[in-house]
Amino acid sequence: MTQILPSRYLFGPGPTNPYPEATAALGYPLLGHLDPDFLQRLDNTCEGLRQAWGTANARTLPLSGTGSLGMEAAFVNTVTHGDVAVIAVNGLFGERMCDVAARCGATVIRVDHDFGQPIDPERVAAAHPNPKVIAAVHAETSTGVLSDIKTLGTLKGDALLIVDAVTSIGGSELRADDWGIDVGYAGTQKCLGVAPGLAPFTISDHAFDRRIEKPQSWYLDLGLLGGYLGDTGGGRTYHHTAPVAMVASLEAALDRILAEGLENAWQRHRSAGLQLQSGLQSMGLELFAAEGYRLPQLTTVNVPEGVDSAKVRQYLLRNFDLEIGGGVGKYAATVWRIGLMGPNASNSSVTLILGALEAAIKNAS
Amino acid sequence: MTQILPSRYLFGPGPTNPYPEATAALGYPLLGHLDPDFLQRLDNTCEGLRQAWGTANARTLPLSGTGSLGMEAAFVNTVTHGDVAVIAVNGLFGERMCDVAARCGATVIRVDHDFGQPIDPERVAAAHPNPKVIAAVHAETSTGVLSDIKTLGTLKGDALLIVDAVTSIGGSELRADDWGIDVGYAGTQKCLGVAPGLAPFTISDHAFDRRIEKPQSWYLDLGLLGGYLGDTGGGRTYHHTAPVAMVASLEAALDRILAEGLENAWQRHRSAGLQLQSGLQSMGLELFAAEGYRLPQLTTVNVPEGVDSAKVRQYLLRNFDLEIGGGVGKYAATVWRIGLMGPNASNSSVTLILGALEAAIKNAS
Repeated sequence: MTQILPSRYLFGPGPTNPYPEATAALGYPLLGHLDPDFLQRLDNTCEGLRQAWGTANARTLPLSGTGSLGMEAAFVNTVTHGDVAVIAVNGLFGERMCDVAARCGATVIRVDHDFGQPIDPERVAAAHPNPKVIAAVHAETSTGVLSDIKTLGTLKGDALLIVDAVTSIGGSELRADDWGIDVGYAGTQKCLGVAPGLAPFTISDHAFDRRIEKPQSWYLDLGLLGGYLGDTGGGRTYHHTAPVAMVASLEAALDRILAEGLENAWQRHRSAGLQLQSGLQSMGLELFAAEGYRLPQLTTVNVPEGVDSAKVRQYLLRNFDLEIGGGVGKYAATVWRIGLMGPNASNSSVTLILGALEAAIKNAS
Repeated sequence: MTQILPSRYLFGPGPTNPYPEATAALGYPLLGHLDPDFLQRLDNTCEGLRQAWGTANARTLPLSGTGSLGMEAAFVNTVTHGDVAVIAVNGLFGERMCDVAARCGATVIRVDHDFGQPIDPERVAAAHPNPKVIAAVHAETSTGVLSDIKTLGTLKGDALLIVDAVTSIGGSELRADDWGIDVGYAGTQKCLGVAPGLAPFTISDHAFDRRIEKPQSWYLDLGLLGGYLGDTGGGRTYHHTAPVAMVASLEAALDRILAEGLENAWQRHRSAGLQLQSGLQSMGLELFAAEGYRLPQLTTVNVPEGVDSAKVRQYLLRNFDLEIGGGVGKYAATVWRIGLMGPNASNSSVTLILGALEAAIKNAS
């Protein structure tokens, strides 16, 4: 029986189409999680992640779950009952942080911003005199907005700065150490160009020293995970079985990105995104995110009056095998999200999506 | 540059070498996690898992992490501060359950057994008059022992029965509904023959109704996850980005296993394991697990006096590209663990490992 496999241009908010090297590596012969060759692969992956994060943190690793598990790891290891967490909210993922932190027992001080606007570092930093953590999303996947983490880092005081870099890593300038990020988490399925399933994670020594010693999650306990990474000096001790195929895939993508040059990859995302945004505006469409804070890798655009968002997306899927995203929450039907990430940050993707979207708006409404 | 990829016979406690169909599916064109074709793939995967579990539970799904995350999901959704958890311990994974349950706030009643022995259902059931949950490991990966879950199910009373089926699923008889399993979790990297990265999970309606409404983990909150599975009737709502490549791989392996016939797959594991155990005994080696309770898919064997366990394992890796496992905890250097799981449950694997082990014992000591 011949199997017909559906194929897609993944131009939504993620997952993106992976780099071909990342797909090939998924099929490499599988290695055990304690095999010396695998541990070398893991070390190389962690080193690649350090570069992608812009950090020298020894504790930089891919956690064994998706980006949202990375968020959980960030909070579960840093806050517990009685700790104050100041959280900047300018989209769905800031909201999710509040939920996650509250489940850890933290007292959450939520600093709301209009969706589509960046966070205001001054207002966030002023929200509480002495929080244990301050948290913000670098690139809000729900709204397409880039926020100024660097400034927030200068204002954080004694707080640990937790940053969501799910959509920025590999696609936008990200300098964890220079910006004062203490704990960062990300995903693989956006600008790193890998299938979803791992959460690149980094934590500074300073934050590790101030961590919750026995967090409520065993799976995400960074003290235990450290034994597997070998940071205790001795041999590697088993914690849980690492997702070895996904790690091989992430390693291959990082090798590819670093061969291109990280800043070149940022520039490629920027160039494709600006071209897309300019093309959309030329078609008479309005962008949703505030000017000056638009993510190039994820563009949000208002659905024009009289156009049925879902019909257009269905038309794109049926006629072009092309996925874009709807909006989130109250913007579900009024905003589209168009991602050009990883290998899709290219001229040809821009040309394809502009042409396809024009046809879809014309024919599907 | 030609890359030389290390290749291994994975005859340890897992991961095993995957079924070829599972490896091929990792490279399928990636689909978005809300793509109708992916949701169909996910539904098919959940249906295959229902068969592997022997359950009609609607809430049967692959969780987005490895088997240990499945363990965490089981406890985090069923116990909280003040709840009593009776946990049968006859190996490392029973011990891990105690740690995980305690971090959820449960009062843990630990029922210890000698390592290498099965659990005693009567003693476990008598440990507390009215626990919220009783938990046990079906196939202890650390000791190679199969326990009688069916009898425990008849004795559980009002407690919810949580079962670790990480190493049994796909390789040993497993009948969740017939045996009264309320919550079960497993892994993909053992007898299902898929790379590690997903935790097959099942929960009965009855257990779901008695769940913790707002568990301490957002990522594992079964109430929220249900929205993505569509169990609330309406459309599918986004919770987190599913690891779509791993799901495709699991679907392909399940299709393969169900085409072979689940009971045939159990029989194949049984046959290979018995052959191996008989061959090892013919070589004069002693098995570690108690007779009558030996897992065929994972054989534990005592390292002979005067033989250096690590040297033998290194010899196997270097000369045969073949991995077996050491023991766990105090048995680290005195027990080997040999797994024949998934595609490796075959005559040729038995012949290879017996020949290679004989050479290694002779030459590496």
